[in-house]
Amino acid sequence: MASVFRPAVDAMPGYTPGEQPRQQGWVKLNTNENPYPPSPAVVQAIRDTAAGALNVYPDPNATTFRTVAAELFGVTPDWVLPANGSDENLTIITRSFCDPQDTIGYPYPSYILYETLGQIQGCSVTRLLLDKHWQWTDAAAGTMRQKCKVFFVPCPNSPSGTVWTPNQLLELLPENGVLVLDEAYGDFADNPHHGELLLDERFQKRLIITRTFSKSYSLAGIRFGFCLAHPELIEGMNRVKDSYNCDAIAIAASTAALRDQEWMLNNRDRILKTRSRLVEQLARLGFDVCPGQANFVWITHPTHDHQDIYQQLRNQRILIRFMRFPHATADKQELTGLRITVGTEEQTDTLLQALQQILH
Amino acid sequence: MASVFRPAVDAMPGYTPGEQPRQQGWVKLNTNENPYPPSPAVVQAIRDTAAGALNVYPDPNATTFRTVAAELFGVTPDWVLPANGSDENLTIITRSFCDPQDTIGYPYPSYILYETLGQIQGCSVTRLLLDKHWQWTDAAAGTMRQKCKVFFVPCPNSPSGTVWTPNQLLELLPENGVLVLDEAYGDFADNPHHGELLLDERFQKRLIITRTFSKSYSLAGIRFGFCLAHPELIEGMNRVKDSYNCDAIAIAASTAALRDQEWMLNNRDRILKTRSRLVEQLARLGFDVCPGQANFVWITHPTHDHQDIYQQLRNQRILIRFMRFPHATADKQELTGLRITVGTEEQTDTLLQALQQILH
Repeated sequence: MASVFRPAVDAMPGYTPGEQPRQQGWVKLNTNENPYPPSPAVVQAIRDTAAGALNVYPDPNATTFRTVAAELFGVTPDWVLPANGSDENLTIITRSFCDPQDTIGYPYPSYILYETLGQIQGCSVTRLLLDKHWQWTDAAAGTMRQKCKVFFVPCPNSPSGTVWTPNQLLELLPENGVLVLDEAYGDFADNPHHGELLLDERFQKRLIITRTFSKSYSLAGIRFGFCLAHPELIEGMNRVKDSYNCDAIAIAASTAALRDQEWMLNNRDRILKTRSRLVEQLARLGFDVCPGQANFVWITHPTHDHQDIYQQLRNQRILIRFMRFPHATADKQELTGLRITVGTEEQTDTLLQALQQILH
Repeated sequence: MASVFRPAVDAMPGYTPGEQPRQQGWVKLNTNENPYPPSPAVVQAIRDTAAGALNVYPDPNATTFRTVAAELFGVTPDWVLPANGSDENLTIITRSFCDPQDTIGYPYPSYILYETLGQIQGCSVTRLLLDKHWQWTDAAAGTMRQKCKVFFVPCPNSPSGTVWTPNQLLELLPENGVLVLDEAYGDFADNPHHGELLLDERFQKRLIITRTFSKSYSLAGIRFGFCLAHPELIEGMNRVKDSYNCDAIAIAASTAALRDQEWMLNNRDRILKTRSRLVEQLARLGFDVCPGQANFVWITHPTHDHQDIYQQLRNQRILIRFMRFPHATADKQELTGLRITVGTEEQTDTLLQALQQILH
């Protein structure tokens, strides 16, 4: 019998997330998790919710969460859409804006999931090639503006940690579509914004900012994210999302997390401090370190094989990310490198010692 | 500026879930929640998980959950797909199997969300009209078999509570597609199955059963559901779902809930006992009560206005569901009625007393 799946689903390889070993004992620096625990207020909010009425449906609008998030970004709650993790933000966006004849664009190398989401939605996907300084050309941006219904930009970018300026981002604003700033790592930027861009008239009704609690708020286990956008955009996306896409515990946890800004900012500061040391030491070991603004660093080595370094670390139960980006340049050359999450001071020591041995 | 949304999204009204009042003091019998709390083992599992590593991603495959679910239904874990509530089960299914030229079918009146999901996916939706005994004709079923890529059947059905036999369901099995048994209320059926249908060769590789923890397991607040299907179907749907669609707490909670079958079955028995009394009393009050096998009853009244009854109950802070199904018969007549969730004994007393006053 022929496949009952959509041809697009049969054809797609699917997205492979970073390895999540279930056993203890790994130094896990491969999926950009926060090495520090969430605020005690979050744990308390979860316990309180668990003691309450779990038998009834959650608030489909996550009203308490949206109210707190709106305050933080200087908007009203109708600018906020709650989602089951930032992956769901992105899924809701493709389902809201992209028909089969439409095109999704994204800078490359960056987050490959955009490509998978385009395949699932059955539309075209095009890449904006970045040069070795992680920048694009005016001409290429112009093509993207004309061609794309949705343009995704991770900012800070992964794996490079690059932050582009508002004026640069404006170059990518689709003429008849939306620009999505995927700010999964937004809180780690040198100068995190507070929603100013949302009210910038040049982006009016065509900008969506996505956020997650997985990184800066130490809640990857909870799955909660949200979109910030003009209420006309939120209203349509709200009709596309499942009514009860966020559970009562995730709503309570994320609301508590957002209210404890001090906890998040303290962890951010510790991570950025560790990042400075990590960057310095990696450079001493001979790596080329990309200057980034996220909770990870992207490194390449002029002589050593990247996959070999990854594998040798893995043998010592240290997990980092070996990344391979085919066709990463205009002449279709492959880019490889290593992306390392900034862990605790202790994890960083373990990593650096292991790297020293490997490269000796 | 023209809308940036897909025309299908602009055109759709969106699904309106049942009312979820945030204030206390309502007798809430409108969204088929379980009136009893979840197992204490569930609450403990949530507390334990909250005390653990929330900063790391959950297991994308929900391995512990799938192992327990597979045992319960006599299959292997690769027959199980975890989802963020049963709504996500249904969303993953439409995204996996339905292209714009495809057709989704469902019996009518039943769960209107199927129609919304078809609209979002941009495909056609067709209704299999049910007669006043909630049955279909052979001829109509034959058309559905030929025409539909996906046919959704809620079984027990909502709002009627009807359970159709495997032989009847076979009449709806698409010739080139999948039959989806939406068993949100499956545990309340007179004779709940234990997965026998999955291994029935007549349905081989074309049957998907969906389940939720929102009803029988008293966990509407958690959002967890799952699909049961042949591994070839699960594998493709797994590539469509978001990698981390279920959070660590929901996985732990649903696993604990599934392990405490006794708790669920005790609550089921209490609900069915209350249902018997409710059915009897509603009949005495002059309602026509549909004989159903779920945790709700569907009633109509030969003389009183249904919406008026609903509104008068609402004025007393008793919420039930007034439902209106346009074009519910071959000659396009509208069907209206009231769907009442089976609550506690006390809630049922309150409801019956109020109805007696209204109908006196």
